[in-house]
Amino acid sequence: SKTKYGNNDVAGVVTGLAWTSVGGDILFIESSITQGKGKLTLTGNLGDVMKESAVIALEFLKAHSHWLDLQQDVFDNSNVHIHVPEGATPKDGPSAGITMLTALASSFTQRKVKKNIAMTGEITLRGEVLPVGGIKEKILAAKRAKIKEIILCEKNRQDIEEIEQEYLKGLTFHFVTEMKEVLDIALTQEKAKKN
Amino acid sequence: SKTKYGNNDVAGVVTGLAWTSVGGDILFIESSITQGKGKLTLTGNLGDVMKESAVIALEFLKAHSHWLDLQQDVFDNSNVHIHVPEGATPKDGPSAGITMLTALASSFTQRKVKKNIAMTGEITLRGEVLPVGGIKEKILAAKRAKIKEIILCEKNRQDIEEIEQEYLKGLTFHFVTEMKEVLDIALTQEKAKKN
Amino acid sequence: SKTKYGNNDVAGVVTGLAWTSVGGDILFIESSITQGKGKLTLTGNLGDVMKESAVIALEFLKAHSHWLDLQQDVFDNSNVHIHVPEGATPKDGPSAGITMLTALASSFTQRKVKKNIAMTGEITLRGEVLPVGGIKEKILAAKRAKIKEIILCEKNRQDIEEIEQEYLKGLTFHFVTEMKEVLDIALTQEKAKKN
Amino acid sequence: SKTKYGNNDVAGVVTGLAWTSVGGDILFIESSITQGKGKLTLTGNLGDVMKESAVIALEFLKAHSHWLDLQQDVFDNSNVHIHVPEGATPKDGPSAGITMLTALASSFTQRKVKKNIAMTGEITLRGEVLPVGGIKEKILAAKRAKIKEIILCEKNRQDIEEIEQEYLKGLTFHFVTEMKEVLDIALTQEKAKKN
Amino acid sequence: SKTKYGNNDVAGVVTGLAWTSVGGDILFIESSITQGKGKLTLTGNLGDVMKESAVIALEFLKAHSHWLDLQQDVFDNSNVHIHVPEGATPKDGPSAGITMLTALASSFTQRKVKKNIAMTGEITLRGEVLPVGGIKEKILAAKRAKIKEIILCEKNRQDIEEIEQEYLKGLTFHFVTEMKEVLDIALTQEKAKKN
Amino acid sequence: SKTKYGNNDVAGVVTGLAWTSVGGDILFIESSITQGKGKLTLTGNLGDVMKESAVIALEFLKAHSHWLDLQQDVFDNSNVHIHVPEGATPKDGPSAGITMLTALASSFTQRKVKKNIAMTGEITLRGEVLPVGGIKEKILAAKRAKIKEIILCEKNRQDIEEIEQEYLKGLTFHFVTEMKEVLDIALTQEKAKKN
Ligand SMILES: [Ca+2]
Ligand SMILES: [Ca+2]
Ligand SMILES: [Ca+2]
Ligand SMILES: [Ca+2]
Ligand SMILES: [Ca+2]
Ligand SMILES: [Ca+2]
Ligand SMILES: [Ca+2]
Ligand SMILES: [Ca+2]
Ligand SMILES: [Ca+2]
Ligand SMILES: [Ca+2]
Ligand SMILES: [Ca+2]
Ligand SMILES: [Ca+2]
Repeated sequence: SKTKYGNNDVAGVVTGLAWTSVGGDILFIESSITQGKGKLTLTGNLGDVMKESAVIALEFLKAHSHWLDLQQDVFDNSNVHIHVPEGATPKDGPSAGITMLTALASSFTQRKVKKNIAMTGEITLRGEVLPVGGIKEKILAAKRAKIKEIILCEKNRQDIEEIEQEYLKGLTFHFVTEMKEVLDIALTQEKAKKN
Repeated sequence: SKTKYGNNDVAGVVTGLAWTSVGGDILFIESSITQGKGKLTLTGNLGDVMKESAVIALEFLKAHSHWLDLQQDVFDNSNVHIHVPEGATPKDGPSAGITMLTALASSFTQRKVKKNIAMTGEITLRGEVLPVGGIKEKILAAKRAKIKEIILCEKNRQDIEEIEQEYLKGLTFHFVTEMKEVLDIALTQEKAKKN
Repeated sequence: SKTKYGNNDVAGVVTGLAWTSVGGDILFIESSITQGKGKLTLTGNLGDVMKESAVIALEFLKAHSHWLDLQQDVFDNSNVHIHVPEGATPKDGPSAGITMLTALASSFTQRKVKKNIAMTGEITLRGEVLPVGGIKEKILAAKRAKIKEIILCEKNRQDIEEIEQEYLKGLTFHFVTEMKEVLDIALTQEKAKKN
Repeated sequence: SKTKYGNNDVAGVVTGLAWTSVGGDILFIESSITQGKGKLTLTGNLGDVMKESAVIALEFLKAHSHWLDLQQDVFDNSNVHIHVPEGATPKDGPSAGITMLTALASSFTQRKVKKNIAMTGEITLRGEVLPVGGIKEKILAAKRAKIKEIILCEKNRQDIEEIEQEYLKGLTFHFVTEMKEVLDIALTQEKAKKN
Repeated sequence: SKTKYGNNDVAGVVTGLAWTSVGGDILFIESSITQGKGKLTLTGNLGDVMKESAVIALEFLKAHSHWLDLQQDVFDNSNVHIHVPEGATPKDGPSAGITMLTALASSFTQRKVKKNIAMTGEITLRGEVLPVGGIKEKILAAKRAKIKEIILCEKNRQDIEEIEQEYLKGLTFHFVTEMKEVLDIALTQEKAKKN
Repeated sequence: SKTKYGNNDVAGVVTGLAWTSVGGDILFIESSITQGKGKLTLTGNLGDVMKESAVIALEFLKAHSHWLDLQQDVFDNSNVHIHVPEGATPKDGPSAGITMLTALASSFTQRKVKKNIAMTGEITLRGEVLPVGGIKEKILAAKRAKIKEIILCEKNRQDIEEIEQEYLKGLTFHFVTEMKEVLDIALTQEKAKKN
């Protein structure tokens, strides 16, 4: 099981929340950057919509590289790989958007991701965060995995308010409307050690 | 819901009108331009016909770059990304043509789009705007989203005349036959701040 | 409806005749040329056979560029786009061959197409025009659209002779066997103004 | 109908024999060569096996360019287009192999093809001609089209011997085992005029 | 049959464990490196998920090339081929991940793989080894093939504990959590002779 | 029929043994090399597994070019074409592996293949020959085609021992375990004349 939460020592790995036919689950968005020519590789049995989220996340970072003090040419001179374990499970949908965005931002800056944080939300090319479904199931899964903080779209606040209070104990929520807020909350100033 | 209308602070984002099996809706055409080699990326779960609209819009702008005081080489040295939220919803058809054209023109010129305006219409390579379907449903959706001005093909004027007057209160219509008219109406002279 | 016939002010647009399950119709073949590296882009919901017609037309012009006083390198340094409105309607078959050929020849030379002319016929790589089907329905559609002259394959002459005379009033027919004849008839010596 | 036989004034066009569900027919293999970088374009609604024949024919000519006094770099600096009218009819099978080979050899050398000749046979990469089916139907179609000479695989001789003598009157047969024989028979020493 | 175990004289070949509808089996992951430009070729009738494992393994090695004292440019200047006999059998799933990783590491370093070792486990981009299914069947197949040591994910320890002791006689197990441990166990310091 | 066996005057052509629904047959693997940039072209209506055999054979030769005294750059500067007549017959499976390997080795070295020899066996990337099915049917077909020597995998020896002695008269068998043995047996030291 995935209940032992990874410690985020490695840059580029972020915890997302998934909603499947058998309930909520956490998943890891793993990203890795190597010297290259701007190729994007996507693995983990991803459907088309989920692949599009990765494209949007990467294009958005390119267009807003100044946010992260990145030079434009770092994108041209890098290959980017995003993987979502576990390979045997097909995955799809737009709700990993902010998780992918954060993973890529962490990989490019080598800034560590905050510990014990998870997130779910669709991204857009203009920088807005959109609400997603399955919030209750995702929150329960996050708790089981010892997550402490969760980032959601402001428009998902109502879904949280409909959950009984006892299930929310120990969880801090961040409701956001813009993708920049996600990065400000999730990325620490601490640099990862190259492993 | 999408009823809170975006304020168009960002260049490259334009409000379109969609007609789906569950009625009318507004949608955003988001475009973004980064340094590149002329690649066009399309995301948002788009069908083939809708993707073709984006190709036509971009090719038309290239061939008429003088309208917007753009140099030819800006197209060769840019990558263009068009995204249409929400990723989980499949979208198709030619009716987002003028919206895509306006979004790209705004992105390339960084001229802001007029506030509270929406549009729907097919585009052609020779610069004509063609009529589209679902006008009544689209108009109702536009009103719900606080849209004030709407651009339509002249040949859709009759569809508007068949709608009861009370539903049209507060809406200004622009009926056009040529794509150049769309750009003249929708693009302001104000430049967007880089965000 | 398409009954108001375009005035051919723009080079590269030619009126074709289509035969669909609901009768005859006119359609526009639109072409546009921009600075590029020889890429051919085809839009308008075209089937494979119709796309092949565009490839044949372009290759034929390349191989016979001297007919139009074109330099060989104009093809290498141009991107060609052919679009056939309306995007929502799937289209297929070889009968737009001569229309595509004429549209491309007009685009490359910027010579205007004769007003009020329409055409239908398959093309070959050796320069012959082949007959096509649905002639009666296409002729009726052309008349409704105020077409005055029609180019057909010589082998379609018999189909015209089988139509009652009253339907042909006001129409002039050109029966051809070679693709060069089509260009000689359809292209004027007048240059289009860049729009 | 195709019964009026083309006069082979143009290099690169060769008459083949086809066998379809409705009987035998002649078809034209048209080829054209333009300045380029070695691209092969295939049109005419061809199936995979027929496309493979074109690839084999071109590769074989490259490997045996000395037969035709061609320089190796003519292949690298040319684009080759093979088209088989009529576009609306799907075509497949390996039997146009020798016809494609002859058409390409004629295009590259600009040597005219012998008048009133037709052919059918599969090709191989080692230069052998293989027998094909539908010989009786193809011969009848050739006669109807006023063909005078026919090239066949030696192994199809028996199929000819089974045809009643009266159907063969006026036809000369060439039975071959090697692809070089086909070129020797079908290509004249006369150069085509550029048309 | 595959029961005679290969002697690992050749670098780049590693024994994996497969679980099919007819029970467990061993399989060989074969890899080969030639001078090139970074192309990855995958053969052996592999499904998409298994192909993704190879991509992940290669990208992970690129990002952690310092572990193996490899220069970055060795990846840019090599073509990598992974083959999994037997070609007639379709194969899929993520469980060959650590086997592929080890095969590639052996190929790039030319370090020999330990004799009589086999392994099964999914890999991730962040370096974790994930558990896989069919452990009992795989262990029985390994024994039949005279395997002596087996590498498994720590989370598969419980599956081993559920197997009766007599079936495990003569087998040594290595339970790992990180991909680096796999390489440390499986790769010897002995260099392969070029064969 | 294919019973008249080719005389192997041409380098690059090797006789294989096929097993189809209608019994055994011989087939020819034809290969051809032209000046190029390393492209591999496969024709002959081949299925995916058979195409993979060609890829493995070519990659294996690249990695073991020293066996044949070939320079590495001969592969980078050549295009390779493998064709398997007859185009109308779909073919698949891994059993042509050693035949393809031998054909390519003969093409690259221009060494002639031994006369009256045929072979069948799967290849691997590590140089092993694997057994294949349909041995009895293949042997009978080889006899009908006047084959004198046959190369098989050592693990197919048992299949031969099960065939009645009278069917084997006049046939010499070579049982091999490694791909190098195949080349040593099948390739003569005599160079082919360029044809
Ligand atoms: Ca799970
Ligand atoms: Ca906002
Ligand atoms: Ca909506
Ligand atoms: Ca107009
Ligand atoms: Ca219409
Ligand atoms: Ca003629
Ligand atoms: Ca016909
Ligand atoms: Ca011969
Ligand atoms: Ca097996
Ligand atoms: Ca760890
Ligand atoms: Ca046969
Ligand atoms: Ca061995």
